[in-house]
Amino acid sequence: MSTKIIDIVARDIRFPTSQSLAGSDAMNPSPDYSAAYVVLKTDHPRSLEGHGLTFTIGRGNELCVAAIDSLKTLIAGQTLESFTSDMGAFWHRITGDSQLRWVGPEKGVIHMATAALVNAVWDLYAKAEGKPLWKLLVDMTPEQLVSCIPFSYISDALTPEEALTILCSNSATKELREREICASGYPAYTTSVGWLGYSDGKLRSLVREGLAQGWTHFKMKVGRNLEEDMRRARVIREEIGWERKLMMDANQVWDVEEAIRCIKELSVFRPHWIEEPTSPDDILGHATIARSVAPVSVATGEHCHSRVMFKQLLQAGAIKFCQIDSCRLGGVNEVLAVLLMAAKFGVPVCPHAGGVGLCEYVQHLSIFDFVAVSASLENRVLEYVDHLHDQFVTPVVMRGDRYMPPQTPGYSIEIKPESLARFEFPNGLAWKEQVSAAV
Amino acid sequence: MSTKIIDIVARDIRFPTSQSLAGSDAMNPSPDYSAAYVVLKTDHPRSLEGHGLTFTIGRGNELCVAAIDSLKTLIAGQTLESFTSDMGAFWHRITGDSQLRWVGPEKGVIHMATAALVNAVWDLYAKAEGKPLWKLLVDMTPEQLVSCIPFSYISDALTPEEALTILCSNSATKELREREICASGYPAYTTSVGWLGYSDGKLRSLVREGLAQGWTHFKMKVGRNLEEDMRRARVIREEIGWERKLMMDANQVWDVEEAIRCIKELSVFRPHWIEEPTSPDDILGHATIARSVAPVSVATGEHCHSRVMFKQLLQAGAIKFCQIDSCRLGGVNEVLAVLLMAAKFGVPVCPHAGGVGLCEYVQHLSIFDFVAVSASLENRVLEYVDHLHDQFVTPVVMRGDRYMPPQTPGYSIEIKPESLARFEFPNGLAWKEQVSAAV
Repeated sequence: MSTKIIDIVARDIRFPTSQSLAGSDAMNPSPDYSAAYVVLKTDHPRSLEGHGLTFTIGRGNELCVAAIDSLKTLIAGQTLESFTSDMGAFWHRITGDSQLRWVGPEKGVIHMATAALVNAVWDLYAKAEGKPLWKLLVDMTPEQLVSCIPFSYISDALTPEEALTILCSNSATKELREREICASGYPAYTTSVGWLGYSDGKLRSLVREGLAQGWTHFKMKVGRNLEEDMRRARVIREEIGWERKLMMDANQVWDVEEAIRCIKELSVFRPHWIEEPTSPDDILGHATIARSVAPVSVATGEHCHSRVMFKQLLQAGAIKFCQIDSCRLGGVNEVLAVLLMAAKFGVPVCPHAGGVGLCEYVQHLSIFDFVAVSASLENRVLEYVDHLHDQFVTPVVMRGDRYMPPQTPGYSIEIKPESLARFEFPNGLAWKEQVSAAV
Repeated sequence: MSTKIIDIVARDIRFPTSQSLAGSDAMNPSPDYSAAYVVLKTDHPRSLEGHGLTFTIGRGNELCVAAIDSLKTLIAGQTLESFTSDMGAFWHRITGDSQLRWVGPEKGVIHMATAALVNAVWDLYAKAEGKPLWKLLVDMTPEQLVSCIPFSYISDALTPEEALTILCSNSATKELREREICASGYPAYTTSVGWLGYSDGKLRSLVREGLAQGWTHFKMKVGRNLEEDMRRARVIREEIGWERKLMMDANQVWDVEEAIRCIKELSVFRPHWIEEPTSPDDILGHATIARSVAPVSVATGEHCHSRVMFKQLLQAGAIKFCQIDSCRLGGVNEVLAVLLMAAKFGVPVCPHAGGVGLCEYVQHLSIFDFVAVSASLENRVLEYVDHLHDQFVTPVVMRGDRYMPPQTPGYSIEIKPESLARFEFPNGLAWKEQVSAAV
C-alpha cells in the first residue's frame, strides 16, 4: 500500500503579537509571529496528513506561502514511499529545480518554503510509521541517516564516511540515552524574561517568576543601548546570582568593531554566550569577534540559511554554540548535516526556538542529537519561550526547565483547526477584529 | 516642484529562451530568461517613469514580482526628492522594514525585489536630472556618493573616510577618463560562444565569428564533464591561440576538493580566470581553492547577495576578480559599497552580465567605476552576451569589443511596451503560442 500526496494547501497564519511587545528585540521591535503553513493531504486510509510550517514575523509571510505554491508541483501526485525510499534524493529534488534555485540559491524565501514542505513530508513519514519524529530518526540505522544528508558543498568538512563513523560510535549506547531523556527530559533555558520592550520592574518580576519555576539559564536581549543593557543585566544578575547562567542576544545590530567594544563592556556580567553579535552572513566577522572577546563565547545560527554557512562558522572557529533553526535551514535533511558537522567539530548544538512552533519542532532535533549524534548534554540547552503553545494540537510538555519527549506520532507542528481559521491573514476573525478596532 | 510616485506596477516578464539552449550551463540547463519588472509612475509634468527589473531564469520570477508588491508601500506616495535628498536613508528605508527583513535578511527573493525597486528609483532620478545613470554618478561629489553607501556590517573593511579618500584621489582626473571612455568605450568579453548546449562544430564556428568581430576575451562554460570540458577548451584554444584570453565558468557545480582537482586539469589551457568554482556562499571554500590553484585566478560574484559576502571574499583573498551583479545586490547603493571595497583591496571589478537587461545595467556601473573609483582598465573586462537586446528601448551600443557609453537619460533598462505585452507570463501572446503548440 502506498500513500499518495493528493493535495497541498498553503495558508498564511499570523498572530498579532506585536501588541504586547513580547518578542521585541533590538532588530525586530514589533514582530507578528507568523507561519507559512502547509498541509499535505493524502489518500491514506486513515486520512493521514503531513503538516509543516516556516516561521516569519509578519509581513513577508505571504511570500513564503507563495513560494510553497511554487514548489508544490515537485511533490504533488507523488507517493510518500517514493520519497522515504531515498530521502537524500527527495531533498535534492525539492531544492534542485534549476529555475527556482536561481531565486535563492538555498536561502531566503525559497529555502524557508522548502523547509515547510520538507518538514511536512517528515511529519507525514513519522505519522505513517506511528512514531514521533525524534524516535523515527533514533530508530534509523547510521546508513539510513547518512543517506538522508545532503553532502554537496560540505564534503571538505564532513564526508559520508565520517558521518557514519560518528553515528556508529554511538549506536550501542543509544538505548541508554533514550531511557535517560524519556525519564528526565532535555534541559532548556528561558527567553521569556528579557525582551527589550519590558520595563525594569516587569523584567525583575519575570525573572523572579522564572526562578520560582526552576529555571537556571536566562537569556536577555541587548543591543539597542549599551547603558540600558548594562542596567538590565545588573537587574538580572541581582536576581539570579552568579551560579546560574545569563545569555545575551544582540540580534545582529552591531558592526564588528562595535560588537567587540560592547561585548567587552558587557563581559563584566559574565554572559554564558553572546548571540548574533553581527550580520548572520559575516563568518569572518564572527571569527574576529570570537577571538577578540574570548573567553566570552559567541553563538549564532537562527539566521544561518544553509549547511554551507554553518560549515564555515565551524571551520573558522567562529562559534562556541551552534544555534540551528528548524525552518531556516531546509528542513530535517539539512539539519542532520549540521548536527553531524557540529559533532565532528565538537561544538554543542543549542537550537533556536520561540516564535510560533519552533519549540514544538526543535525538541525533536535536540533529543535525536543527544541520543544518536552528540551523546552529550554538556553545555547544551534548548531555547524555550512560553508563546502560542496553546495553538497547537500537541504542544510541548515542560517539566520544570526540561522538555519532555513528545510521544504522539509526527513532528508536533499541527496547529488547531480553529486557530488556523481565526488567525488566517487577512480574513481570519482575529484580523477582522483588528481592522474594526482601528477604524 | 516635487515629483510624487503615484503608482507602482510590477509585471512578470519571461522569454522562452530554454528552447535554444543559449544560456545553458552546468547548473542551469534550461533557463527562461525573465524579469520581475517594475514601473514607478509619477505626477511629473513630462510623465517621467522609473523603470527597474530583477533578473531570474523562469520559475520563481512570480515570487520576485510578489516581493516587489510587498515592498511597494515603502515607496508609494513619496516624492523622488524625499529620496534623492538622502539616498542612504532611502536604502535603509527599503531594506529596513523589520518584518520583511526576516525573510532575507538581505538575500534571496526579498533582496532581488529590493534591487528592482532601488534601481527604478535611480532610473527615475537620472531621468529627472537628464543624465544617463553613469553620468549622474560621475557628476556627484565624493561626499554625495559616500552618503549613498550602506556602511552597516562593512565598517571593519571600509569606513566612510576611506571611501571618501579613494573618491577624492580620483576627482581631479575624472574628466580625462570620461573623455577617454566616451571616445573608446569600455572593454568587454564574450560569453556567447561557449554554452554547454552547443556541439563542437557550432562552438568552433561561433569562436571564429567572434574572432572576426574582434573579440579578444572568450568565456566557456565547464563543469558538466571534465573530459568534455578539456575537449571544448582545446577547440577554443586552437581557434583563439594563446595570446587571447580564455575564461572558464563552472556555475557552482563543484565541491571544494573536486574544484581543485578539476581546475588543476583545466589549467593546461591557461584560463584567465575560473568562475564560480563552488557554492557562492562558501567564502572559505573559495579561499582554499584560490590558494590551491594559484596562479590560476578565482572569480565569483553573480550569486553573491550582499556587500557582507563581498567584504569577506575580499578579506579572505578568495577572489582575483569581483563579479558584481546589478540586481542580486540590492541595487545601485549596495553596488557602490562593493566598488569602493574592491578598490580598497585592489581587486578589479568585472561585472556579471547577459541574461535579460544585465548588459544594459552594468555598462553604467563599469563606466562609473573607471571614471570615479578604480581609475583603471587593467584586468577589467565587462561581460557581453548577445541576447535579447532588441527588447529594450535603448539597447547597449557595441563598437567591436567595446561598450559605448549610453547617452540617453536613465539606467537603460526600459523594455519596449510591445515586448512587455508579448512576453508577460502567462498571458502574453508568446506564452499562449507555446501552450497552443504543445497541445
